[in-house]
Amino acid sequence: MPQGPGFKYNRRVHFSETDMAGIVHFSTYFRYMEEAEHALWRAAGLRVENIEKTGGWPRVSATFDYKRPLRFDDEFEIAVRIGNVTRRSFRYDFTFTLGEELVGNGSIVAVCSSKDSGRLRAVDVPPEMIARLKSAAGQQED
Amino acid sequence: MPQGPGFKYNRRVHFSETDMAGIVHFSTYFRYMEEAEHALWRAAGLRVENIEKTGGWPRVSATFDYKRPLRFDDEFEIAVRIGNVTRRSFRYDFTFTLGEELVGNGSIVAVCSSKDSGRLRAVDVPPEMIARLKSAAGQQED
Amino acid sequence: MPQGPGFKYNRRVHFSETDMAGIVHFSTYFRYMEEAEHALWRAAGLRVENIEKTGGWPRVSATFDYKRPLRFDDEFEIAVRIGNVTRRSFRYDFTFTLGEELVGNGSIVAVCSSKDSGRLRAVDVPPEMIARLKSAAGQQED
Amino acid sequence: MPQGPGFKYNRRVHFSETDMAGIVHFSTYFRYMEEAEHALWRAAGLRVENIEKTGGWPRVSATFDYKRPLRFDDEFEIAVRIGNVTRRSFRYDFTFTLGEELVGNGSIVAVCSSKDSGRLRAVDVPPEMIARLKSAAGQQED
Repeated sequence: MPQGPGFKYNRRVHFSETDMAGIVHFSTYFRYMEEAEHALWRAAGLRVENIEKTGGWPRVSATFDYKRPLRFDDEFEIAVRIGNVTRRSFRYDFTFTLGEELVGNGSIVAVCSSKDSGRLRAVDVPPEMIARLKSAAGQQED
Repeated sequence: MPQGPGFKYNRRVHFSETDMAGIVHFSTYFRYMEEAEHALWRAAGLRVENIEKTGGWPRVSATFDYKRPLRFDDEFEIAVRIGNVTRRSFRYDFTFTLGEELVGNGSIVAVCSSKDSGRLRAVDVPPEMIARLKSAAGQQED
Repeated sequence: MPQGPGFKYNRRVHFSETDMAGIVHFSTYFRYMEEAEHALWRAAGLRVENIEKTGGWPRVSATFDYKRPLRFDDEFEIAVRIGNVTRRSFRYDFTFTLGEELVGNGSIVAVCSSKDSGRLRAVDVPPEMIARLKSAAGQQED
Repeated sequence: MPQGPGFKYNRRVHFSETDMAGIVHFSTYFRYMEEAEHALWRAAGLRVENIEKTGGWPRVSATFDYKRPLRFDDEFEIAVRIGNVTRRSFRYDFTFTLGEELVGNGSIVAVCSSKDSGRLRAVDVPPEMIARLKSAAGQQED
């Protein structure tokens, strides 16, 4: 788990995100993680619109561990940190809390890509981008 | 990875499941996995409606590894198998294929729960239920 | 209301489409209508993939009148018909039934568009396309 | 169209709300309308959690007229007003704007319901509730 407070993103649960079990559907947490990711991008001064041109940072993997459910109208917080960085991919780590309680932890591994004549191609992660994301997440440079 | 062919669930990608990158949004694969899970339940002759009374088999964790994207109108196949079974939880393993190509692998760990006076409580997984799910998935009993 | 039986599209309600009220969320019916629209396109032998190039047949309006709710695992039927056709747009009419019961009625007005240098522009509806859609919907030509 | 400025709800478009046409999917506007509805409830000091007990204010109808598309990251505004009120139902009217531009107009008619032994039953709309919603929307009492 990376150090530092992380970038904080606050969210309220919408009615349409619940299911008949009365709680937020488990697939919705993956949308929440992406929202927090893009909020971090904006905080880092990165042009999120470039996401489109680069093919949207295709995901290599995504995972979530559920500790307690979220319900309609809950106001919860997501802390985002930059985790492991490899040559062509890096990991976001997310911690969801509701007040003092842990809701769950998740992560997304995204690959840096470029669109060449309509096809996606993995390219090297720009070091400056990682530096800016880590800075916005309150993390020390390694 | 559990043995056996697995239960097969076929699906076509809907337009609303794509995003501006032109591919199926990464969160949608978690909905697809749940659809395949419920199709397996029906094939096993289990009453999916009981899911509601038991609190919807709350998820402990969910994960997906993406190998190649799905696009609008793609007709893909999901193979479901029952993976590791513990006293109060068990794992579904999913393999997504598009023709001969691997789309990705995922898993969901669900806990067996009971609603006592409105609160969820973890209870022992009924062995007969696992036997029926494995049988429907074409897996040998251990 | 246009005459004729309409094109029939069958669907089962997925768990993720329900909300905490225990019924299908009202926004989901608009996704169901689009699925039925695209099934009609396929039945008419029209290349749905062209939807992308034409900008996705942008919607001018969409409406739904709810008569009775759908619930998890319900197997319902949608009948689609081509309604009013104007020079640059046409209407789909949808009737949802669950067994003998009316679930609701809806409609979508779509405009025929073309992408010229990245911008959408309304163009005339191809008469042959309407003829093929009406034929697939079992409707007489006017 | 009801008079008055209406209650204002601000929203940013999330990536997962777009589709392969590069714009917000037309079904998503119905989720946006509901979000604005619930924000109005909170502003009116009404307990949104009661929505669950009353069966979620089932919708009689929902409609939207699209004027121009929304795209990823757009920050738009929704103005909500209370429209026609009948004995057992009332209408919300929504106007979506992006800066100075009109995005579209929509409405939702909701029926006041009560859960009696698990079944929904339409009941009279509480006059005080309408008064509070209209007040929060900056509308004069009739």
